[in-house]
Amino acid sequence: MTTAKWIWRLALSILLVVGFVAADKPKGYHREICQYRKAKHIQPMSDHHNRLMAMREQMQIRATLQGPEIYGYILPSTDEHLNTEVAVRDQRLRYLSGFTGVRAFAAVANKGAAMWVEDRYAQQADGELECDWEIYLISGNVTVADWLGSHIGFDKRVGADPHLVPHSLWIEWERQLDGKLLKLVKINTNLVDHIWGSERPETPKNQVIKVHEKRYAGEKWQDKVKELRKRLAHLGCDAMVVTSLTEVAYLLNIRGTDIPYTPVVKSYAIVSQDDIFFYVAHAKISLDIDLHLRTECFNADCVKIKEYNQIWSDIRTYAQLWKRVLVSAPCVQDPGASEAIYSSMPGKIVVWHISPIIFMRAQKNSDEQEGMRRAHIRDGAAICEALSNLETRFHTEQWTEEKIKYEVELWRLSQKHSKGLSLRTVVAYGEHSALPYYISSNVTNIEVSDQSLLVIESGGQYLEGTTDVSRTFIFGEPTQEMKKVYTNVLAGILHLTQLKFPSDLKPSEVDAVVRSMVWKDMTDYPQATGHGIGSFSSVEEPPISVAYGKNSSFHFKQGYFFSSESGYYKRDDFGVRLKNVLEVVDTGHIHPSGTHFLAFQDVTMVPYEPKLIDSTLLSAAEKRMLNEYNAKIRNDVGDELKRLGNMRAFYWMMNQTRHIREYLPEDEYRSSYGGGSGVPTTSPLIVLSLLILISGILQS
Amino acid sequence: MTTAKWIWRLALSILLVVGFVAADKPKGYHREICQYRKAKHIQPMSDHHNRLMAMREQMQIRATLQGPEIYGYILPSTDEHLNTEVAVRDQRLRYLSGFTGVRAFAAVANKGAAMWVEDRYAQQADGELECDWEIYLISGNVTVADWLGSHIGFDKRVGADPHLVPHSLWIEWERQLDGKLLKLVKINTNLVDHIWGSERPETPKNQVIKVHEKRYAGEKWQDKVKELRKRLAHLGCDAMVVTSLTEVAYLLNIRGTDIPYTPVVKSYAIVSQDDIFFYVAHAKISLDIDLHLRTECFNADCVKIKEYNQIWSDIRTYAQLWKRVLVSAPCVQDPGASEAIYSSMPGKIVVWHISPIIFMRAQKNSDEQEGMRRAHIRDGAAICEALSNLETRFHTEQWTEEKIKYEVELWRLSQKHSKGLSLRTVVAYGEHSALPYYISSNVTNIEVSDQSLLVIESGGQYLEGTTDVSRTFIFGEPTQEMKKVYTNVLAGILHLTQLKFPSDLKPSEVDAVVRSMVWKDMTDYPQATGHGIGSFSSVEEPPISVAYGKNSSFHFKQGYFFSSESGYYKRDDFGVRLKNVLEVVDTGHIHPSGTHFLAFQDVTMVPYEPKLIDSTLLSAAEKRMLNEYNAKIRNDVGDELKRLGNMRAFYWMMNQTRHIREYLPEDEYRSSYGGGSGVPTTSPLIVLSLLILISGILQS
Repeated sequence: MTTAKWIWRLALSILLVVGFVAADKPKGYHREICQYRKAKHIQPMSDHHNRLMAMREQMQIRATLQGPEIYGYILPSTDEHLNTEVAVRDQRLRYLSGFTGVRAFAAVANKGAAMWVEDRYAQQADGELECDWEIYLISGNVTVADWLGSHIGFDKRVGADPHLVPHSLWIEWERQLDGKLLKLVKINTNLVDHIWGSERPETPKNQVIKVHEKRYAGEKWQDKVKELRKRLAHLGCDAMVVTSLTEVAYLLNIRGTDIPYTPVVKSYAIVSQDDIFFYVAHAKISLDIDLHLRTECFNADCVKIKEYNQIWSDIRTYAQLWKRVLVSAPCVQDPGASEAIYSSMPGKIVVWHISPIIFMRAQKNSDEQEGMRRAHIRDGAAICEALSNLETRFHTEQWTEEKIKYEVELWRLSQKHSKGLSLRTVVAYGEHSALPYYISSNVTNIEVSDQSLLVIESGGQYLEGTTDVSRTFIFGEPTQEMKKVYTNVLAGILHLTQLKFPSDLKPSEVDAVVRSMVWKDMTDYPQATGHGIGSFSSVEEPPISVAYGKNSSFHFKQGYFFSSESGYYKRDDFGVRLKNVLEVVDTGHIHPSGTHFLAFQDVTMVPYEPKLIDSTLLSAAEKRMLNEYNAKIRNDVGDELKRLGNMRAFYWMMNQTRHIREYLPEDEYRSSYGGGSGVPTTSPLIVLSLLILISGILQS
Repeated sequence: MTTAKWIWRLALSILLVVGFVAADKPKGYHREICQYRKAKHIQPMSDHHNRLMAMREQMQIRATLQGPEIYGYILPSTDEHLNTEVAVRDQRLRYLSGFTGVRAFAAVANKGAAMWVEDRYAQQADGELECDWEIYLISGNVTVADWLGSHIGFDKRVGADPHLVPHSLWIEWERQLDGKLLKLVKINTNLVDHIWGSERPETPKNQVIKVHEKRYAGEKWQDKVKELRKRLAHLGCDAMVVTSLTEVAYLLNIRGTDIPYTPVVKSYAIVSQDDIFFYVAHAKISLDIDLHLRTECFNADCVKIKEYNQIWSDIRTYAQLWKRVLVSAPCVQDPGASEAIYSSMPGKIVVWHISPIIFMRAQKNSDEQEGMRRAHIRDGAAICEALSNLETRFHTEQWTEEKIKYEVELWRLSQKHSKGLSLRTVVAYGEHSALPYYISSNVTNIEVSDQSLLVIESGGQYLEGTTDVSRTFIFGEPTQEMKKVYTNVLAGILHLTQLKFPSDLKPSEVDAVVRSMVWKDMTDYPQATGHGIGSFSSVEEPPISVAYGKNSSFHFKQGYFFSSESGYYKRDDFGVRLKNVLEVVDTGHIHPSGTHFLAFQDVTMVPYEPKLIDSTLLSAAEKRMLNEYNAKIRNDVGDELKRLGNMRAFYWMMNQTRHIREYLPEDEYRSSYGGGSGVPTTSPLIVLSLLILISGILQS
C-alpha cells in the first residue's frame, strides 16, 4: 500500500470514527415481543441462543487456525449450488437461528446478530427468531455492510464461506465492506458445520439418481452435450464447469430428490471437448445410471463419474491444461457460479459468461412442449378436485390456511406421474392475501372463513413437466370492490394471452400490457409479471423476466414457457393474485421488418372464480377469450376428471367455467352505432311486434 | 504506419480488387423511365445534368487548390445547423439534382451519381431526378461506402463538407469508407456553392428576429441561461457551443423565419459562465432585440452580438481559455453538433454530451402548457373549417391531393396567431395513403374521389405552441375492412391516452400498448409511435421516442408533450394513420415504489371519422373514452368555431363528434352475466310482442 493510500485510509478512519460516535445504530424491523421481554427482563435460554454463542466462539477460534480473528460472519441460506430451497443437511441458517424462510442471510458480530429477509417473511421471522436477532428487510436501505460497520468498528475482518456466495454478490459485499474499511475474507470450512458436528443430518440413503427418459426429455443427453460443445467452441472455451443443479440435470437427462421442490441431484459436471466428468456421491449411482451415462467406455461421449468433492482438486489440475474455461455469470434469476468455483482457477483462464445451457434448455423441444401441456391438464384436475372437496366441506369443518395447504398438496400429489411440489404452497387468506408471497406457517396460520379472499399459489412436478399457478377464490359473497379488482387483474392476464408481437420485442416491453390494468387504479404489484419455467425442473428458470425498467437483451422464442401473473394488494384488507403459465408459439406470419410474429398460448388449465368476475367491466373481446379458455378447460380437464371418476370435481369445474354472454343481440348494437343522424334505427323486434299487432287488428 | 499495417493494407487491397472484379455493382431503385430512355437513346440535356458535370470539374480542381484530387463527393440535404428542412439558400442538394425531398444525401463519382432517399420519397425522386442518378433507399442494404467502393476503386479520397455532417455520422462514414480503403477528407468550402456562384439566392431581407414574449415563453431568457450555467457547472464545463437553432431560439426567447416549418433564426450561441455570445447576421437585429437581449451592458447577463461567421475564429480563440467545453452529442432525433464544430477545438477540451437544454426545454412550464392547449383548440377549428368546406364542395368540384393540401394549409394559416406550418402537409389518397409519410408533389399528385381513404397529416405553428395531427377520412362509404382497420388503430391511440403509469417506465415500454392493436392483424407501421414536440418550435423534439426495441434511458416527465400515433398500411390499396399530441400530467398519486403515477391527456382536438368506427369492436371503456374526447371537442372547438362564426364547420364538427352508446340497458347486462345456467333471459321486447299478440287475440 502506498503512502497516499495510507493517508487516505487514516483520513477515512477518522471520519468513520466521528460518524460512528455521532450516528445512531441502524434500526430494523420493530419486534414488539422483544420490546416486551426486554422491559420484563425475560431472557429465555434456547438451543438457538446457545448456537449463536457457539458461533461467536468459532469466530475467535479462526484466529488460532487461519490468520487473525474475524469480527463478523455472514451466512446465507443457500447451499454450494446457490439453490434457494436446500436439503435439510444444508439448512445452516435454520440450524443457527431457527428461521425457516428462504432467500435470507444473517450477519453475526461479537455483540449483536442480524437477519435480512424478504418482506413476505418479516412476520414469520419475528415469530421464529430469538430476541438475539435484529431483523432487516432485503428491500430496505440498511445493507449488511452498514450493519457490520456500526457493530464491529473498522479495519477488521469479516468472514464468509465462498462456497455459499455467488461471485457477483461476493464482489458487491467486498466493495460495500471496503467502504466501511472492513475486509471480507474467505473462510473455507463453514463455521456452522463446526458447531453442528455430529448432529448434522446425513444425506438420506434413498436419494438415488433417476434417468429422465427420452420420451419426456425429447432429446438424448449425447446430443445436448454435442450442442453444448459447439456453443463452447463458438465462445472459444475449452471447457465449462457446470455448477447449477438444474443445468446438470438437463444436460445429462437425470433427475433426483436431493433438494426440495426441484427434482435434481447434488452434483457438478465438467464438460470439455474431450471429457465429461460428473461429480456426485457414488452411493446415488445405480446400474441404470451407469448404462444411461455410458460410464464403461472412454471416449468423449462417455461420462466419467467421480466423487462429489473431487471437483476441487480436479479443477486445480485441469486449470493447468485449459486455456479458457467458461464459468457461469448471473442471468436474471440465476446467480451464476459461487465465489469458490470462480476463484479456484487462475483469473486469466476464466471466461465469465452466461451459461449456454440456459438458452438450450429454455427452448423446449416438441416432446417437452407436449409434456408441459399434459402436466398442466392433470394439475388443473388436481386443483378442481381440491377446491370442489374444500367447497363441499367448507361449512361443516373449521379451516385454516395450513389445513387448506395440506388438502391442496394432497390432491396434487395423488395425480398420475406426480413427483412432488414445485414450490412452497401459498395459502393466504384475508389480510394475509394482501402480503405478496406470504407463506403460511405455524406461527402465522389463521382461520379461513367465507368473508374475504383466499389466494392459493402452488405448483407440482410431474414427469412431463412443471406447473405453477395462482388463483384467488371466495367462499362467501364478494364485495363490489373485490369484483372490480379481480376483474382488472384478470383482464391484464387476458390481454397478455392475446398479444401477437414481433420476435424482437423485449419481454420488459410487454409488461405494461398486463400492469396497465392495475396501474389504472394507481396501484401495482411488487413481483415481476413473468419468469421462465422449467420442464420437470425449476419453477423459475432464466432467461425470461417480464419486468419493466429492467435492461435485458433476451427475447421470447418459440418453445419458451413462462409465467404471466398480476396481482393487487390492499394492505390489511385483501389481495388478489392470478398466475398462468404461457407457451410462446410462432404464428407463421412475418413482420414487415422480417422477424416472425410470435403469440402466447395458455398452458395452465385452472378455472377462474366466476363470482369475482364483473363481466360489465370486460369488453366483448375479453369475454370471448375467457369463454374460449373456459371451453378448453371443460374439454381437457373435463376428460381428465371423468377419467379419474371424480364427478364432484367435474361438476364444480363445469360450474366455474360456465359460458358468459359476449355480445348483445346484433340489433341492439346497430341502434347504438348505426344511424348517421343519431336517431336509432327501428329494431326488427319492434317491426315484428307491429306486424303482429296489425295482424291481430285485421283478424278482429 | 507500421509495416504490419502496410502488409494488411496490401492484402486487403488484393482482396478488394478481386471482389471488385467479381462482384456486380450495387443496383438501386428500378427506374423504368431511364430504362426506356436508354433503349431509345434519349438523353435530354438539362440544367441539372450540366450542374452535375460542373460538380465533377470542381472535384478535380480541388487537386490544384487543396492537396490531391478527390474522386468522390458526398452531399447531404442538411444545412450548417443540420436542419431537416433548410432555407432556399441552403438547398444545395436540390440545386444540384432537382430533388425536392428531405433527409436525403447524394454521392457523386467521376462516373455515376447516386442519391439515398427515404422510402416515402422514392417515387418522387424517380420523377424528379435525371437519369444520371441512381436511387437507393436509406433503409436498404447498399451504403454510400459500398457504392463509392464499387465506383471509384480503392485508396482514393472522398470529400464532404464537415459543416453539413453530424460528428457521429462523419465517424460512421469514415469507418465505412475505411473498410473500402477510401479516405474521407474535409472540404471546407462547399463545392456546390462554387457552381452556384452568383445565382445562389441571398438571404431574404425581411428575415428579422422577433422576441418570443414572456407571456408565451413563460420564463425570462436570463433565468434559462442561469439554469443552463448551473447544469454546465454540474457537468464540469466552462462553456457550451449551442449549434441547434431550436436550442438558441428556446434559450434566448427569440423566433424567426429563417428556415421552413420551424420558427428559428440561423445563428449560433456560446454560453460560458461569464459570457453569452450570439452569432447572427447583423441585418436581422432590430432595436427590440437589442433591448430584449440587453446588448448594451457588459456583465454575464448581457448578450454580446457578433457576426454569424465570427464563431469559427472565436471558438479557436476561446478554446485556449476553456478547459472543458460541452459540444452536443446526438439525442434521439437530434443529430448533435457538426463535424466542423467538433473538430474546431482540441479534442481534449471537448465534452461530447447530450445538450442540457434538451431536458430544460422538454418540460414545458405552465404558460407553455396552457399555450399548447390553446393552440391545439384553434388548430382543431382550422381542420374542422377545412374539412367541412371540402365536404360541401366535394361532389361539385374535382379534387386532387395537392388541391386539398392547399385548402388545409389555407384554413390553418388563417387562424389567430398562426405563424405558418410546422411540417410538410401530407395529403395521401388511396394507394398513396398506404405509403407511410408519402408527400404529394406535382410529380405524384392524383385525383381524390370518394372510394378510398384520405390521410391528412399536418401541423401549424402558433405563437402559443406547435401542433401536429393525423386523421383519416372517407367521403364515400367505407368497406368493412377499412372500418375494422381504422377502429383498431383508433383503439391503440385510446389505450395509450388512458394509460396511468409509474414515472420510471421507459417510453419504449409503452409502445406495445398501442401497437398490440395492429399486431393482432399481423401487421405493423414503420414509424415510431411517438416523438416529443416543441412549443412554437420544432415539431420533432428530443428526448422522447416511443419505439420498442430501442435502448433509451429518458423517462416521461410531467409537462412533456409528445405525439402518439398508429397506422396501418395495406400496400397498393389503402392506409390509415392517426396521430394526437399528448401531454404528460402528474396524477398526484404515489406508486408503491415511491415514484409518481403519471398519466396522459389529449391535447389535439380534431374529430375522428365516425363513418370509419365500428363500435361493435370497441369495449364500453373505449367508447366512453371516445365520447369524453368528443365532448371535449364539442365544448372547446365548438366555442372557437362559434367565435369564428363558421356555423358550417360547427355543425360538421357536431356531427363528427356525436355521442355513441357505451352500455346497453342494465337488464341486458344482467342477463348476459348473471344466469348460472347460461340460458339468456327473455328480452323485454319479446315479452312486449307476446303481450301485443295476446291482446290481438283477445280483441278478435
